[in-house]
Amino acid sequence: MNPVVYQQAPSWSVSQWMNTRDEHISLEALRGLVVVLHAFQMLCPACVSHGIPQAKSIHMAFPLDKVRVIGLHTVFEHHDAMGPVALAAFMHEYRLGFPVAIDQADEHSPIPKTMQAYGMQGTPTLVLIDKAGHIRLHHFGSLDDLHVGAAIGQLLTEEV
Amino acid sequence: MNPVVYQQAPSWSVSQWMNTRDEHISLEALRGLVVVLHAFQMLCPACVSHGIPQAKSIHMAFPLDKVRVIGLHTVFEHHDAMGPVALAAFMHEYRLGFPVAIDQADEHSPIPKTMQAYGMQGTPTLVLIDKAGHIRLHHFGSLDDLHVGAAIGQLLTEEV
Amino acid sequence: MNPVVYQQAPSWSVSQWMNTRDEHISLEALRGLVVVLHAFQMLCPACVSHGIPQAKSIHMAFPLDKVRVIGLHTVFEHHDAMGPVALAAFMHEYRLGFPVAIDQADEHSPIPKTMQAYGMQGTPTLVLIDKAGHIRLHHFGSLDDLHVGAAIGQLLTEEV
Amino acid sequence: MNPVVYQQAPSWSVSQWMNTRDEHISLEALRGLVVVLHAFQMLCPACVSHGIPQAKSIHMAFPLDKVRVIGLHTVFEHHDAMGPVALAAFMHEYRLGFPVAIDQADEHSPIPKTMQAYGMQGTPTLVLIDKAGHIRLHHFGSLDDLHVGAAIGQLLTEEV
Repeated sequence: MNPVVYQQAPSWSVSQWMNTRDEHISLEALRGLVVVLHAFQMLCPACVSHGIPQAKSIHMAFPLDKVRVIGLHTVFEHHDAMGPVALAAFMHEYRLGFPVAIDQADEHSPIPKTMQAYGMQGTPTLVLIDKAGHIRLHHFGSLDDLHVGAAIGQLLTEEV
Repeated sequence: MNPVVYQQAPSWSVSQWMNTRDEHISLEALRGLVVVLHAFQMLCPACVSHGIPQAKSIHMAFPLDKVRVIGLHTVFEHHDAMGPVALAAFMHEYRLGFPVAIDQADEHSPIPKTMQAYGMQGTPTLVLIDKAGHIRLHHFGSLDDLHVGAAIGQLLTEEV
Repeated sequence: MNPVVYQQAPSWSVSQWMNTRDEHISLEALRGLVVVLHAFQMLCPACVSHGIPQAKSIHMAFPLDKVRVIGLHTVFEHHDAMGPVALAAFMHEYRLGFPVAIDQADEHSPIPKTMQAYGMQGTPTLVLIDKAGHIRLHHFGSLDDLHVGAAIGQLLTEEV
Repeated sequence: MNPVVYQQAPSWSVSQWMNTRDEHISLEALRGLVVVLHAFQMLCPACVSHGIPQAKSIHMAFPLDKVRVIGLHTVFEHHDAMGPVALAAFMHEYRLGFPVAIDQADEHSPIPKTMQAYGMQGTPTLVLIDKAGHIRLHHFGSLDDLHVGAAIGQLLTEEV
């Protein structure tokens, strides 16, 4: 019997980082940490009412040397309304404290590149990446805190 | 003893109407109706979580020939992020069904003109205007549905 | 054309009053006030999550010389679990500040007498009685604060 | 350096089991499972609004061969109002599906015996017991789902 093989999480294509003092964060540099990738759009109602508050809660609940929350702004509609200036205002008003990556636009598609690479269906999408860089949970829509907490708790106990 | 004298609600200075098929709505044309003026900014968290859902509830709870809800987009900060294109995307995503007026910018102030005329302190602000055009309630911040409902209920019974 | 004729609210059959220093309150003595009759059972989940918090909000939102909230404990099931001692504990824990009448049991029916007289279908039930003692709203289940507030607001403006 | 030593969870003193077809459940018999002990009183408002819904969510979120939720009715006040008949009515109305133990009364104290043995300060109290029978979390008051989920998730990965 073969063991379960998890998919390696694709690298991120990022046109701009926010809340990082302009540093670029690579997924590879986060090996050894549980990574919570929260894909959102600033004008997506379910992101604002559910996904972003959940990402903020996760960011505050776990120590930074164990769990890292990364926002991914995956604009696939209303591109004119959700550029970097608008996102900066949004992040200021909603007090986002974790790093946010702007997913790189694709000139051939309305879907940005990281969103394509992960096969995301929309926003909000939550992706949990384990310490070794594998995708362990990929959920489009709302997932309750109890399930998300349990999944993070299990990943935390794994050896790299 | 003199009767209470209520302030006449100032006219609205509007650069653009939305959800009205481009028609201009004047406060004067709404004489005989109770008018609920809901001032908001699309990137104001308390507007999104409280004020706008309340305005939508009022819009659905009362018949249009009795109560008219008017949104007023009073942009006084992050002007670059909250222009008409962004507002249209926001209104689409949040399913706003009532008319929205974009408050006219003032070249000498970040505060737009109607916001100035009403002396609004910020967003969300709720203004109730009676059938004769007087301001009867002016509230900055969140006001619970029970109080708002009671105020509207009282204004509804008044003769013009 | 005949005017609308509203039903006169039946008198209350009460075995015991609570939160009244043992005084008996009659509906007749409340003429001139808007009366909010909130029928509940202490072990009814929708009463605990919706009806009772709403009754408490109404009790706090309006002056006592205008609006009077009266709780009516209409036990029609689990009679052994919801006697006066249990109700007193419940009222203490849930901080009910308004008068509560225990609806008088009927030896021939599980439905207590006031509940029968009003034709209530279950709990929670909200009954609004105008200043002249007429039933103006009778709602079984949950009714949102905006509608309840508007109804109270309209009744408040009426002359006796 | 010595390893952390966790306290062994005391046995339960139970006068009556509910939702178990009269079978007695011992903590010892649950070795190998993560046990979520939820101590509550049926007339405790924070239990009804927070603790019990959380216990129900945990009961539904995890398989029975991994996590077992046990309610513990620790009556330490209003004893006359919260006897077994009242509790049965409460459990029926609130649709509690997990086993509930009635904590055994102590003739010398208002605090029942299991509550004493665990040193609980009030209700709601949440106790997480690992597969080997150790207390791993003991919380009086409300604890959010994210933290509870993470704690359960970590315990699930442990070997017995």
